[in-house]
Formats: sequence, C-alpha cells, structure tokens
Amino acid sequence: MAVNRQWKLVRRPVGDIAEGDLALVESPVPVLGPGQILVRNIYLSLDPTNRIWMSDMDQYMPPVEIGDVMRGGTVGVVEQSNNPAFKPGDIVQPMDLGWQDYVVTSMAQKLHVSPEAPILAHMSALGMTGVTAYFGLLDIGKPKPGETVVVSAAAGAVGSIVGQIAKIKGCRVVGLAGSDDKCRWVVDDLGFDACINYKKEDVLSALKRECPKGIDVYFENVGGEILDAVLTLINLEARIPLCGLISTYNADGPVPGPYMFRNILMKRALIKGFIVIDYFPRIAEFAAEMVPWVASGQIKWRVDVEPGLENAPKILNKLFTGGNTGKLLVQISPEP
Amino acid sequence: MAVNRQWKLVRRPVGDIAEGDLALVESPVPVLGPGQILVRNIYLSLDPTNRIWMSDMDQYMPPVEIGDVMRGGTVGVVEQSNNPAFKPGDIVQPMDLGWQDYVVTSMAQKLHVSPEAPILAHMSALGMTGVTAYFGLLDIGKPKPGETVVVSAAAGAVGSIVGQIAKIKGCRVVGLAGSDDKCRWVVDDLGFDACINYKKEDVLSALKRECPKGIDVYFENVGGEILDAVLTLINLEARIPLCGLISTYNADGPVPGPYMFRNILMKRALIKGFIVIDYFPRIAEFAAEMVPWVASGQIKWRVDVEPGLENAPKILNKLFTGGNTGKLLVQISPEP
Repeated sequence: MAVNRQWKLVRRPVGDIAEGDLALVESPVPVLGPGQILVRNIYLSLDPTNRIWMSDMDQYMPPVEIGDVMRGGTVGVVEQSNNPAFKPGDIVQPMDLGWQDYVVTSMAQKLHVSPEAPILAHMSALGMTGVTAYFGLLDIGKPKPGETVVVSAAAGAVGSIVGQIAKIKGCRVVGLAGSDDKCRWVVDDLGFDACINYKKEDVLSALKRECPKGIDVYFENVGGEILDAVLTLINLEARIPLCGLISTYNADGPVPGPYMFRNILMKRALIKGFIVIDYFPRIAEFAAEMVPWVASGQIKWRVDVEPGLENAPKILNKLFTGGNTGKLLVQISPEP
Repeated sequence: MAVNRQWKLVRRPVGDIAEGDLALVESPVPVLGPGQILVRNIYLSLDPTNRIWMSDMDQYMPPVEIGDVMRGGTVGVVEQSNNPAFKPGDIVQPMDLGWQDYVVTSMAQKLHVSPEAPILAHMSALGMTGVTAYFGLLDIGKPKPGETVVVSAAAGAVGSIVGQIAKIKGCRVVGLAGSDDKCRWVVDDLGFDACINYKKEDVLSALKRECPKGIDVYFENVGGEILDAVLTLINLEARIPLCGLISTYNADGPVPGPYMFRNILMKRALIKGFIVIDYFPRIAEFAAEMVPWVASGQIKWRVDVEPGLENAPKILNKLFTGGNTGKLLVQISPEP
C-alpha cells in the first residue's frame, strides 16, 4: 500500500517558522469513495499567505487548525477515478489544498495543458499568481498610459507579472527587489524601466530618482519601510492595490502601520486590500488577455522549483529571506 | 478710514498652536479696483484643516506662507461693489479665504439665504461641512440598508451630518464623541443608534458591544487608537472614507499608522482619502437631497459660534481639545 506523507501543523509559529512547528507524518493513501478521484500531487505552490494561515489571527480564510494538514495549492495527475468527469492522466488542481503526496477529492479543476501553456505556466503566470497580478493591477490600480507604476517584490511571483502587464498598458514601471541579479532580470528580461535594490540603496532617494513624475500606482506586496517611502512620493489620486504585507507576517508583536499614513488623506489616495478569490467570477476576462500574452512570450514567467515535499518548510522560508526569483514551487513527484 | 484686522502666520507651530505663532495686524481696508467687491466678513469657519495649512508638510493645498494672512473660509456681506453681479447687502462667500475683517475680491459665491436656509446653515449642513459629509459617506462609504456605520467625531461639524445621512439610508449608526453631553445630543437629538464616549470607555470593547454585526463603513475624522479599534472589527469589503486625522495634526515628530493596518488586506477593505473640492462639480446632487432634508428638519445642524476675530487662534484650539459641538465658527461682525 502506497504511503501518503503529509505536513501537519503542530503548533503556531512565533515569529519565523521554526523546526517542530510542522511535522511530516505518514499514513496510507486513502481509498476512493463514490465520485472521488485520487490525485498524485506534482507541484506544491509556496506563497506568503501560507504563513498567515499558520497564525491564529483574524484573516480572510480560517487559519489551519493545529493537527490539520498544512494548506497549500497543488497541481497533480489523476491516478484513479470514480468520477466520469476525470480520467487517469488528467492534470488537475485539487480543491482540497494540502502539503501532501496524494489527495482524494471529489472537487478539482482540470487544466488545459499545452506546449504554450505547460503545467508550470499554470502554477505561475496562468495560475493564481497571474490572476492576482492581473486584477490587482487593472481592477484596483487602474493604470493609465504614461503613469508611473511601482511594484515591490518585483522579482517575485506576482510582482514580476504585474510589472509586465503595466508595461503593456503603457506605464513607466519601477520595481524593487533584494539583489542586483533580481534587478537585472526584472529590467533586462522583463522590460521594467528600472529596478531598485532596496538592500543596497536608500529606497526613498532611489524612488525619487526613478519616479521623477511621482508615483500613480503602487502594487504592494511588502509593507514596512518601502510602503512609507512610496507614500511620501505618491501623486494625487494614487491607487494602491494591497496584495500582501510579507515584511510583517513573521512579526512577533504589534507592527505599526505606515508613518506616512496621513498622505492617503493628503493625496486623496486609495488603498484596497484584495484576494484572488474575489476575482474567480471574472476569470474569463483574465484568460482572454493573459493566455495570448503568455503564449506569444510577451509576458515571461519564471519558476523556482525546489525538490522534495520533505523540504517544504525550509523552502517556504526562502520567501521571507528573499531567496527566490519568480514563483516558488516544491516538486513533490515528477510530471507524467 | 476703516481698519482691517488680519491674522498673519508668523512662524509654523510645533505641536499645539502657541501664542506668537500668529499675529493680529491692522491695515487700512483696501480700495476697490474695477470688477471688485468689498466684503465685510460675518463668520469665519474654523476647521481641523487650518492646522494642516500652518505646517510645511506635503498636503493637498499649498501651506500658508509665513507672513501671509491665515487661510480660512468666511461668509460676509457686500458693502461696496464695482461688479454688476453683486450689490451691497448680498450675502457671499469670498473665494479669497482669510482670517480678517474685510476682503476685497473679484470672486465670490452668492448664497441663497432664506428662513429655511439661514446664513448659519450655509456655514454648516448646507456648506462645505455638509458637502464633505454627503459625498464622503455616499460616494466612498456607499452604505447599504442594514449595514453598520461608525462615525468618529460624531458631535463635530461633519460627523453629526454623516450619521444623520446614514440613518436616512437605513443603517445602524454608532458615533464616537468625547463627552456624555455630546453623546446624548448625538443619540437623542440626531437619532444615532448609539454613541460611545471614548474618553470614558474602552473603545474596542464598546464598539464590539454596539456593533454586534461588525463594521461596514467607518467615516474617519480622527486617526490614532480609534482607527485601530475600528480596523479590528471591520467586516469583509468594509469602506473607510478618510476625511481627517485630527488626532495627528499637532504631532511633533513621526506618527505611526494604525497597528491593525494589515486588516485592510485581511478584510479586503477600502480606504480612500478625499477632500470636499473633489466634489464641487457634483454640488447639484448634494443640493437636490440636502436642501429638502435640512428645510424639513430631517437633518439637524448645530453651530458653536464664538465671538471675536481677535480670539480666533484660541477658539481654533477647541477643535483639538474636543471643546466644540457642531460646526465651530467665529463671529467677526453682526449679521445684517
């Protein structure tokens, strides 16, 4: 009988995720009931929000309970099916999200895999990452040609897509990333107008230099000092899609909001938090624009695939130390 | 020759406005040029934003320059006219805003004064105060019947109007004010469902009690701890019209933003700064609803009129100590 390895939440992390917060436990692969399918997970998506789900704080979904399988999106292949909608070999995203080898479920989304849209594209530009970037930027940020768009975590999964869409929409795009290598990738390969290495430069003066006409849209993934520097430079009626605040997720204790909060008032700016699931009803709009952009190479994507479900907690920490470029994934098992 | 007293900005206040930051100087009333009118100011509007204008920080209008007449809205009576659009006796709001007895100007707005809309109504519910309340609540807050609306500075000029409009729109309305007297006025006379004396009660637990279904709209005039308490209790997709942050205007040094800033993300909330001038193009919408509400007494307004231009700086400080109820005004000269 095949073994199913599952990462379970043992205790809630305090600050950084520590050894022992999660435990890898083994159990037999469950038997299929009527209407169910057995999916062998291939890739696990690691996202900043995983850290939120481990905390007991008020959040947009219930936290993962102690003793439960850690929540996380996967893509996998159907190995057995009691459901006429699926056959073995289908590539699917199970609706039961979990850090595990196998999942038995009756709910999954079939992916249209093709040479132009391989599995890995569905885990990045054409997946949740892309939907987040697309609607956050266009629906909340509403960039107009000639405006200046700033993107934090510009070499990250979402930020790298945001900047490319903003370029297509005719904006000046300035990224922020944590290394010269990341900045080179963002400018040379993705076509951003500029990228600031926030670990080397004073962010405020670098933003002043790169945004001579001020900042109209700020796609926020980070929070903290970068948000404060941006708020100092926003133009009237600036829009700030609030996608993430990764700099605060590991905080142990209260984190002050931006010191330049008053500029939201002074500049009559808009801040709007959002989450990708808000936009599921509009997924067709996304597909109509993004699939051609990705297929033609006009939008590039990059994945950082690390091997081994057993390494998932360690790999997750790369997000918080800025270790990854592009979408961070764990390879659980090989593609068929 | 008549004397014109003018308050001029001598130096920028550090923290609270201090004696000597402004000086009352006398000069002759200027002579009219072609197309100009001479207005004798009757009432001076005192508003939290006056304090912003005294500071050199980035803001939505240029600050008042050192040596210039302090900026402030007035209503007055035309005493002489070289302009066929105005005749002596007309009640007008001069476009040249200033803390002074007289103003010579070529730009002014004539008011339609009537028993249902006396001069003082034009300085409160039917003036800038009312426009601010109306559009901030309806255009940004978008309250739906049955939702819970929280209003800070509920006994203030804007807050008292906001709550009454929200009641007309079918909401549960909870105010915050700084004394039992203010709270009684807000509940008994204005019809708010509840009012919390934030100086006596723990704001977070009081809000929990008065907002059992959470908070959908928060009309923000204050900032600081109250904003944090509200952010803790907001519902998904909450809307926060950001009208003012009076608790921070006198701050000397950086002020942290709300510690619960992350809830804007978690609750996918919207915060939007605004200023009344954004809505001048839509003033007819305002008048169509507000004039009947005010004329019928469905919306009540209250003014706190203090005598003497010479006392203006001292009177302004009432806003920051919570000393006023309703719209704070200085009587510069008698109504005709």
